[in-house]
Amino acid sequence: MTQPTTRPTTPTGARLVESMTAAELERAERVEAVLPSLREAAAAADAAGEFPAGHVALLRDAGLLGLVVPTEYGGLGGGLRDLAAATYAMGSACPSTALSYFFHNTSASRGLLPLEAVEAGLFSGDEVKPVRAFAEKVLGRMASGTWMANFASEEVKSSSANIAIATTATPAEGGWLLNGVKSFGCATGVADTYLVTARLDGTSNADGLALFLVPRDAPGVVPRDPWNGLGMRASNNHGVTLTDVFIPADEALTVPGAFVRMLQMSRGSFVGNQLAIAACYLGATQNVYDFALDRLTRKTFADSGRPIASSPMHQVIIGDMTERLETAYLWIRRQLELETSEPPLRPKPEVYRQWRIAKGDITEACFQVALGAFKACGTSAATMDGVIGRTLRDLAMGLVMTFPAERGRLEAAQVLTESKENELFASVPK
Amino acid sequence: MTQPTTRPTTPTGARLVESMTAAELERAERVEAVLPSLREAAAAADAAGEFPAGHVALLRDAGLLGLVVPTEYGGLGGGLRDLAAATYAMGSACPSTALSYFFHNTSASRGLLPLEAVEAGLFSGDEVKPVRAFAEKVLGRMASGTWMANFASEEVKSSSANIAIATTATPAEGGWLLNGVKSFGCATGVADTYLVTARLDGTSNADGLALFLVPRDAPGVVPRDPWNGLGMRASNNHGVTLTDVFIPADEALTVPGAFVRMLQMSRGSFVGNQLAIAACYLGATQNVYDFALDRLTRKTFADSGRPIASSPMHQVIIGDMTERLETAYLWIRRQLELETSEPPLRPKPEVYRQWRIAKGDITEACFQVALGAFKACGTSAATMDGVIGRTLRDLAMGLVMTFPAERGRLEAAQVLTESKENELFASVPK
Amino acid sequence: MTQPTTRPTTPTGARLVESMTAAELERAERVEAVLPSLREAAAAADAAGEFPAGHVALLRDAGLLGLVVPTEYGGLGGGLRDLAAATYAMGSACPSTALSYFFHNTSASRGLLPLEAVEAGLFSGDEVKPVRAFAEKVLGRMASGTWMANFASEEVKSSSANIAIATTATPAEGGWLLNGVKSFGCATGVADTYLVTARLDGTSNADGLALFLVPRDAPGVVPRDPWNGLGMRASNNHGVTLTDVFIPADEALTVPGAFVRMLQMSRGSFVGNQLAIAACYLGATQNVYDFALDRLTRKTFADSGRPIASSPMHQVIIGDMTERLETAYLWIRRQLELETSEPPLRPKPEVYRQWRIAKGDITEACFQVALGAFKACGTSAATMDGVIGRTLRDLAMGLVMTFPAERGRLEAAQVLTESKENELFASVPK
Amino acid sequence: MTQPTTRPTTPTGARLVESMTAAELERAERVEAVLPSLREAAAAADAAGEFPAGHVALLRDAGLLGLVVPTEYGGLGGGLRDLAAATYAMGSACPSTALSYFFHNTSASRGLLPLEAVEAGLFSGDEVKPVRAFAEKVLGRMASGTWMANFASEEVKSSSANIAIATTATPAEGGWLLNGVKSFGCATGVADTYLVTARLDGTSNADGLALFLVPRDAPGVVPRDPWNGLGMRASNNHGVTLTDVFIPADEALTVPGAFVRMLQMSRGSFVGNQLAIAACYLGATQNVYDFALDRLTRKTFADSGRPIASSPMHQVIIGDMTERLETAYLWIRRQLELETSEPPLRPKPEVYRQWRIAKGDITEACFQVALGAFKACGTSAATMDGVIGRTLRDLAMGLVMTFPAERGRLEAAQVLTESKENELFASVPK
Repeated sequence: MTQPTTRPTTPTGARLVESMTAAELERAERVEAVLPSLREAAAAADAAGEFPAGHVALLRDAGLLGLVVPTEYGGLGGGLRDLAAATYAMGSACPSTALSYFFHNTSASRGLLPLEAVEAGLFSGDEVKPVRAFAEKVLGRMASGTWMANFASEEVKSSSANIAIATTATPAEGGWLLNGVKSFGCATGVADTYLVTARLDGTSNADGLALFLVPRDAPGVVPRDPWNGLGMRASNNHGVTLTDVFIPADEALTVPGAFVRMLQMSRGSFVGNQLAIAACYLGATQNVYDFALDRLTRKTFADSGRPIASSPMHQVIIGDMTERLETAYLWIRRQLELETSEPPLRPKPEVYRQWRIAKGDITEACFQVALGAFKACGTSAATMDGVIGRTLRDLAMGLVMTFPAERGRLEAAQVLTESKENELFASVPK
Repeated sequence: MTQPTTRPTTPTGARLVESMTAAELERAERVEAVLPSLREAAAAADAAGEFPAGHVALLRDAGLLGLVVPTEYGGLGGGLRDLAAATYAMGSACPSTALSYFFHNTSASRGLLPLEAVEAGLFSGDEVKPVRAFAEKVLGRMASGTWMANFASEEVKSSSANIAIATTATPAEGGWLLNGVKSFGCATGVADTYLVTARLDGTSNADGLALFLVPRDAPGVVPRDPWNGLGMRASNNHGVTLTDVFIPADEALTVPGAFVRMLQMSRGSFVGNQLAIAACYLGATQNVYDFALDRLTRKTFADSGRPIASSPMHQVIIGDMTERLETAYLWIRRQLELETSEPPLRPKPEVYRQWRIAKGDITEACFQVALGAFKACGTSAATMDGVIGRTLRDLAMGLVMTFPAERGRLEAAQVLTESKENELFASVPK
Repeated sequence: MTQPTTRPTTPTGARLVESMTAAELERAERVEAVLPSLREAAAAADAAGEFPAGHVALLRDAGLLGLVVPTEYGGLGGGLRDLAAATYAMGSACPSTALSYFFHNTSASRGLLPLEAVEAGLFSGDEVKPVRAFAEKVLGRMASGTWMANFASEEVKSSSANIAIATTATPAEGGWLLNGVKSFGCATGVADTYLVTARLDGTSNADGLALFLVPRDAPGVVPRDPWNGLGMRASNNHGVTLTDVFIPADEALTVPGAFVRMLQMSRGSFVGNQLAIAACYLGATQNVYDFALDRLTRKTFADSGRPIASSPMHQVIIGDMTERLETAYLWIRRQLELETSEPPLRPKPEVYRQWRIAKGDITEACFQVALGAFKACGTSAATMDGVIGRTLRDLAMGLVMTFPAERGRLEAAQVLTESKENELFASVPK
Repeated sequence: MTQPTTRPTTPTGARLVESMTAAELERAERVEAVLPSLREAAAAADAAGEFPAGHVALLRDAGLLGLVVPTEYGGLGGGLRDLAAATYAMGSACPSTALSYFFHNTSASRGLLPLEAVEAGLFSGDEVKPVRAFAEKVLGRMASGTWMANFASEEVKSSSANIAIATTATPAEGGWLLNGVKSFGCATGVADTYLVTARLDGTSNADGLALFLVPRDAPGVVPRDPWNGLGMRASNNHGVTLTDVFIPADEALTVPGAFVRMLQMSRGSFVGNQLAIAACYLGATQNVYDFALDRLTRKTFADSGRPIASSPMHQVIIGDMTERLETAYLWIRRQLELETSEPPLRPKPEVYRQWRIAKGDITEACFQVALGAFKACGTSAATMDGVIGRTLRDLAMGLVMTFPAERGRLEAAQVLTESKENELFASVPK
């Protein structure tokens, strides 16, 4: 493919991910091309609370379903920098789409991390073959246009782990029967395949966790009722109920301990790409910041003729918004640097600890920017459907997604003072 | 009326307004009696974005339209303490109704303050009669069951005043013709009468401001399109467009300078009762706080069996929420004390300055409590329609109503260091 | 005593304690009279890190050592309102003296609370006599001019109590031998008598705690080395080492459980008057606020000639300082109301919980005011010895005294969600 | 020079400045070598309020006076990264020395920037020679061991500029006579030469600003009385009074407009290296953080035996401190990147605007870390002279140095909304 002779503007994602390589820029251009469609559909999708049906094809046709799949498996060969740039750019247009797209991409970690674990010698003998086969299947399908939603979260809470798994897989002729409820999963009813994390019946710890490729329309898969989310309403995150869903053995990764060993390969945040969720929110934040500044510098006072932005109160709020916005960029860029630098700048536990704090700081800062825009633009912009009201609602979701800032800082403190970490996943036997 | 022999619980408003007198308690019981209906209708009203039609009759039948009208004009004889207790109690059930009810009651200030100004000798000779007549008309109608919405706000902004008035009254045979747009006014399309502030044509300062009693269905009165507010959605605050609306001379108060002189009688915040708006928000805040604590102490962790509330993160958030909630009570109770104490505890400028800060601190604290509830209850409560999502949206409106906290503090600083105050109302000639 | 015919100004303490009675005003005048001497000595006392020797006589001669001792025991008959007004007023002149004076007065609780406990029937039979005798001895001595320092704190920390006691009393012929280290105690080396809390040898819980009247110069009492405190440097709080100090039996209160029963009578914060410590800090805060505003409104910019206070940055800081200052007043006045209202406005556990939060909010707000003054006045005021640097250091001590704000909020959360309270005192057997 | 075969530890500065080159590491080792002496002298220097006399020779002998002087002028050839690493490392040992050393190095900008301006063609004809001669003189002397203090600040304030200059140079036979007062200047009485900024008599704007090399002991130079600074007490920043001080023409840079043109070459913050001041404070912050964590994890509760750090309150404070500390690193590393990247990542106005915010965020975050350490370690560490009290005082100075955070944000807002910048220097004619 030849480079276009003129490139009128740098892609949106370059505002977050600096000094892109030519290959990164090319992938970012694919993202840039879909932004107008995303932006156009955003308000209606929020109002309806539905993921726009056409967006799956839109992203598939743009080749973006294989963004982070290595070229040897047919993907575009992007990495975390590409994913963050993509979700940031999409977030500036339609945060719900960005979030759903993130969760599709995070499925790739269930292909990439096992392969790395094999490479690192964490599997032996008979284990290697099924692990590699499953991993390559996940990557190959994603590259060839399968939207693969990632369903892990459940409603049950554990005091010692971020995610608790009670969904259970029972052996059946030629495969497994799945039973359980996945309470959260973007692209419910829209994705082609749900990548489901479940515990093998009879096991009691994280070694018993396994992965299953569940076709959207498999018998026994029933979407839960759509919930009326405050924000991120077009991400179809209502999840599914699984009742005796049969999954053939070769559509699953059930090697004992595979899940845990796979997670060991992650470089940092969670399974190694959570910062790209934060990038969705940051893209939306930049958008609401630009919207507010444009509005405040163009509207004027009736008496003085000066822009609204010039009032002392507005100067204070704009100064604060600017500081908060930049703070969010600093944390996320640093995390991106920590998770992509070669050789690694810092040891993994420090990268992990940094993310516990970074997640909260980024999403809090983003929300504060939206709140500043809300206050600065006043009652006339305080609508449900305008950019400001919509973004405020979307960014509120960032505060609770995964964990709030208060928890992240406490976990970091615990790691620092007691060298004790929270578990990521727990198996919850009934 | 005899006191009931048993009073199972104290009225809700007593949580804000302490040491109520017997008369206050009796009025508060009337409010208490309507709360169940308000609470029951709240969610649907929010979803529909419409003030529940039946609430006007409900409050009228309870005698509450005359709550703050003196008994000599047929009212219940309540004061600011009653009003704050009422809007607080209603706010805990349906903040939109509480807000609308507040604006009805604030109309009474256009009756009470002129009478006080007459008493204080601020009017002379021929002025006294029309001023008193208008004032008594306002009070009499309110007491006899007229819902009188108060329409002041417009979209035009002034850098030197809180509210700028461009709606203009032109003399006409036997009265006045009103033209203009009122951008905000609770109970639009529902109130019986709109109390409209306008400037007399040909005048250029606040002395030219006048008041008009505009029947809801008068020719030329057209409700603006309902706007899709982020919160307080059932308060019908979309306002009206006035096109050559004829108002008879005796349905107006057009004595030059009457408006300004009337405002001088106010004891503190704005026209002397703004704190009762804050009370709406505080009632809603207490409700969301109670809801969250109940939920968090009843739900438990699957592994430890301990309540969710006991996790370190939840303890931090609950501690912070509790501190914020109490802070809101402290500011509002103090303001109530400053505006009702006899003899006055502090001189009026200090009471006024205190309100500039109090308004922001109360509404910020309330919003922070809701945000804490939102974070503590997590994604499963992060819905548009649940108590938490709804209250978060309602309380967001408190941040921008009248002015944000940042502006209040700056105004207080200016008063302190330059003895220079912001104007409340400005007349904006075209 | 006759009231003076002219009273040129209201006493300083009336800024905190509103609507004083005539008796309160008269007591406040006694405080007012000593303020000039306190103010004059403050800077040198801070520099030297020594309680000004003459202040004991000054306060004794003013009759102030019996401020909160009932008139029947020879005191002035003041209560918590008087004490708060006094420490606030003294705090505005010399915070170290105010703090030392507070701890003298808090000794009175060891007389008043036992008497209340007797009254309430918490002691029976033989217990009554020694309890009453000790209580009356404490009160009588204070009223007759004994400065009675209160020595409880020790260096040992307990995770479950605010104060842990390891100092031990062993029976000896005709009395007790005390051994231990009191790490903190205002007026070390200056007070006439140290009121020492110790555990009786062989006991293991708070029932074994007892009180001893230790003469300053008793054999075995050795002041610890003066420590170089960051602030409150003139309060001589270095404490003492007790080595086989003999105390006659009738100079002690050793009835088992007397200490614990006595504490039950306290109405709120700790032993019922901790808010008067916070009042010391608030007085100092008002002083630094006034100092800064005076300076900023009098100094001008060389180019514009306008006061420094008028710059946008100064307006922001002054607005914030004003809000913080008022916040401190609100919390402390509320606590005072809760602890003095008759009948009680709220049940004791709520009064207690409120104080956990109030303590932190008051001292944080005070510190923030000083920090604002520091920032607003710039490098030229950033000295060790000026009002701003000195007050910043003094107010920093308020953050750590008793417990920081973070702990208070966590304790309030625990009480709310688990009905579990922290113990005030623990006995720590070796 | 060969690399040492073993390098037991990386230099302290590498914690801030990552991925050092070999040359940078070598320069950092020179800094590392002097740290033990700095650390050892720090407490006594603070107590005495005097720059340790031997430190000038110490740093000179280590070759560090020429750290940022290009090798062609005899220096070590370091840049901003080296300077930041050095002041950070020194700040962790003795912040006062670090600050004084910073101001010596900032003098180099008065050599480097003019040379760059000549290079950029900003000077023409006859101007080039004297500009270059002065610049090379400054650099040459620094490299050969002259400690060159930088004296700009004065007490006069301007509402439109950060620094206002009233010190005046009047022409005299063969040179100039200087009269004025420099209110702040590190290394007063210790530096060999004071680099003084003054206005030429008869000029009225920044074009009339000029530079003078004033020998420490020149007639008419009188140090002001040492002031009793709250922190940074050993930096001898009391400044000088200049009375008819004669400076030969060739010891001055008086080309009209030279000063202003020189400033144009700066890449970002102020004269292009202010972030290295912030690095002093950050080094001190890391030190107090490490001190507190070590103390809190080693001391234990008497009852539970667990470390003090494990209490809920301590976990909260440690989490907050960690977040604040990392925030400071993020802002300063970003600024360093913006000011050193080739090609520049962002246009100069954005780099400049970023610094306005960064300065405040870094110093506020640093102060908050110290405040957290103070609160977490409690009264026993709240001393004037311990690490915690000393660092708290030192870091307080960072809040007011140059400008507070509130001002930086307001300036950034103004730039954003009105494209209007504050001037750095103003000339203030009498």
